[in-house]
Amino acid sequence: MRLRIDPRTGTAFELERGHYLTVIDPEGEQVSDLVAYNRDDTDEVISSGRSIDYASTLFLTTGHVLYSNRSRPMLTIVADEVGRHDFTLTPCSCDTFRILYGDRTPHHGCQGNLERALAPYSIPGDRIPIAFNVFMHVDVDGASGKIRVLPPKSRPGQRIVFRAEQDLVIAMTACSAGQSNNFRYKPIDFEVSATCPDWAREAAEPVPA
Amino acid sequence: MRLRIDPRTGTAFELERGHYLTVIDPEGEQVSDLVAYNRDDTDEVISSGRSIDYASTLFLTTGHVLYSNRSRPMLTIVADEVGRHDFTLTPCSCDTFRILYGDRTPHHGCQGNLERALAPYSIPGDRIPIAFNVFMHVDVDGASGKIRVLPPKSRPGQRIVFRAEQDLVIAMTACSAGQSNNFRYKPIDFEVSATCPDWAREAAEPVPA
Repeated sequence: MRLRIDPRTGTAFELERGHYLTVIDPEGEQVSDLVAYNRDDTDEVISSGRSIDYASTLFLTTGHVLYSNRSRPMLTIVADEVGRHDFTLTPCSCDTFRILYGDRTPHHGCQGNLERALAPYSIPGDRIPIAFNVFMHVDVDGASGKIRVLPPKSRPGQRIVFRAEQDLVIAMTACSAGQSNNFRYKPIDFEVSATCPDWAREAAEPVPA
Repeated sequence: MRLRIDPRTGTAFELERGHYLTVIDPEGEQVSDLVAYNRDDTDEVISSGRSIDYASTLFLTTGHVLYSNRSRPMLTIVADEVGRHDFTLTPCSCDTFRILYGDRTPHHGCQGNLERALAPYSIPGDRIPIAFNVFMHVDVDGASGKIRVLPPKSRPGQRIVFRAEQDLVIAMTACSAGQSNNFRYKPIDFEVSATCPDWAREAAEPVPA
């Protein structure tokens, strides 16, 4: 069953170990900030630093594993039709809009949406880490280090599939930051399934060395 | 007073708002993983994601601010004789040595040293974020995203100076990972002062636009 995250909102749900999460960009050029917690001990949380270190790349895609702060696999990227996501930036927040955009009455952003979605799991805002920013296109100049947030490479209907390696709490948004989605705030769709979607099984590649 | 962090160890201390922390690489090519917490509420912690976002660069140096997860300034880089540090990777741990180096009896790493140093402040290992890895040289290929840990650019005696923007708990290491320090495990020195060191005041540049 396909579910929709409305523009500038978020949601949270449990994902069983071995089950699959497909994130779909229904209209193209939209970002979804994704965070994950061990369902049974929410102090264990997705870690950009560990994941980037073990993959030796900033850009995670098919075959890469998203590790926790305890160096245990949380999610494996099983298939990826877009191939470009960000794992360096935190969810946009009212502070982001204030500091980067100069907004006087800033939106609560993905941070606010994740906090609302995670409240039923007793996970406070201070525990929201660097998100895996699905479809977010952050251009990196390797020489200077400078980054630029560009429109996502995702075209309408393109997808990424994760397999849960633990019982998880997942929270996701349809991103609220104009720069991330080319200033057209759009929805994000997702599906949870007990088996790998057929297209993804066919697309899956071996884990990179 | 100059203090020394012995090879493959760590330390923690309080740093008052407005005071200065100088980190010195006494022998060259060594890394110090640095984390910071609000002394009066240790749920507020240094955030790579916020800092990189607000600076729009992966490589923070003179004039840049290290922000907390609550988007408040924690440390400002007042002077920097090296100009290359990392803010993407988590502290090395026994898992790092196991996963990346294949060690069968892995060292507890910077993660273990930070946990020991932070225990008196009741800050558990799960609360250690992506560190500001002082002098760590992570080469980034902007096209592929691939990263390589290279020997630091720091020469013997080179320094970086931070000003505390809050009352902080700081924890720091002399890094335990061979790749980070060209496989020569060395000490790190530091000094705390109530006023800005003279050389740093002269070297300070305006905040980049």
